[in-house]
Amino acid sequence: MSQVFANVGLSLDGYMAPEGMTLEHWDSPEYKQWGAKWGALMSWILSQQYIRENLKLGPGGETGPVNDMIRNTTQRTSANIMGKRMFDQGERAWPEEAPFHTPVYVLTHAKREPWGRPGGTTFYFINDGPERALELARESAGSRDIRISGGADVIQQYLNMGVVDELEIALAPVLFGSGRRLFDNLREPAPRFRIERALDTPAATHLRYVRE
Amino acid sequence: MSQVFANVGLSLDGYMAPEGMTLEHWDSPEYKQWGAKWGALMSWILSQQYIRENLKLGPGGETGPVNDMIRNTTQRTSANIMGKRMFDQGERAWPEEAPFHTPVYVLTHAKREPWGRPGGTTFYFINDGPERALELARESAGSRDIRISGGADVIQQYLNMGVVDELEIALAPVLFGSGRRLFDNLREPAPRFRIERALDTPAATHLRYVRE
Repeated sequence: MSQVFANVGLSLDGYMAPEGMTLEHWDSPEYKQWGAKWGALMSWILSQQYIRENLKLGPGGETGPVNDMIRNTTQRTSANIMGKRMFDQGERAWPEEAPFHTPVYVLTHAKREPWGRPGGTTFYFINDGPERALELARESAGSRDIRISGGADVIQQYLNMGVVDELEIALAPVLFGSGRRLFDNLREPAPRFRIERALDTPAATHLRYVRE
Repeated sequence: MSQVFANVGLSLDGYMAPEGMTLEHWDSPEYKQWGAKWGALMSWILSQQYIRENLKLGPGGETGPVNDMIRNTTQRTSANIMGKRMFDQGERAWPEEAPFHTPVYVLTHAKREPWGRPGGTTFYFINDGPERALELARESAGSRDIRISGGADVIQQYLNMGVVDELEIALAPVLFGSGRRLFDNLREPAPRFRIERALDTPAATHLRYVRE
């Protein structure tokens, strides 16, 4: 059966996104230094060969366990679920060939026809809540896996539903001070995870937790 | 020169202490399940040989890199700084031979004579703020190191002063949902750290950061 997982970059103080990284300030990366903070959070990934190849950043890049991990995350995923804010920001920022190459279920109150993009990404706009989105994702996923892409509030909803099987966190050594926390609004009893692996690299610590 | 460091256990969602772990509920570990949460946070340490020996829990226990790390933390420390709440709770909970064996500088508004305990711990009550406590700790520390023992609010004060040289975190795979966060109330620009080491064990991930 499909595994449900989240895979996120996290600041040392627990933020997925710095304050100011909103639609309003999307074009102002100097606002509250969100651009610099985001860069520090994500620096490890842009140096990897698999990402460089996919984003057409040119040849070269690191190969090794982190690169293998990123490739595996992409290859295992056959459906994505995301929130409206992440979609709205992405709609402005992604290239025409949106970087998912799977069905993407967007949790929203807005009614909209499915939106297909070159490269195999189709966005479906789901008005019936996170359970329904997961049901549709399971139907489309076959035996491969479902990624809860974000943002933080969407991951929190699925954590509270108790359906997140794996949590992968790239913990970067940067303090944001404010922003959107990954772990917030959790209901008791919280889901229980065990550590499956921590991969120590100079740029980030790659933590992998599996639900008990 | 002495290094200033903090060494804490942290829940995966960033809490140093679960909600309910207060003087009021100190004797009620079932209150909001704080006892069970604290146990999950600290389970890795009670299985170590050095701790078992020190707390007189009996022979045996794990030896290895985690045990060496704990011994090293104790041996490098020649002064502790803590907040009033941590002291007040400890005054009730510590054995007569308080587990510090160094001068301990307590940040408080209460005036009180130094309080010596068997085994080399003396508590000094500092009314002049965190800078003064650090100054006194540096004077007493010699070439060994100064530990900011806690709680979270005290570590935050020293992070905001920019004087924390090393941050050691044992990240346990437990979600508290609420409590006292380690990283909160940080002022910009936040201090910058680099990853020095992440030690992967099944019970906790031992992260070590050094100030840049």
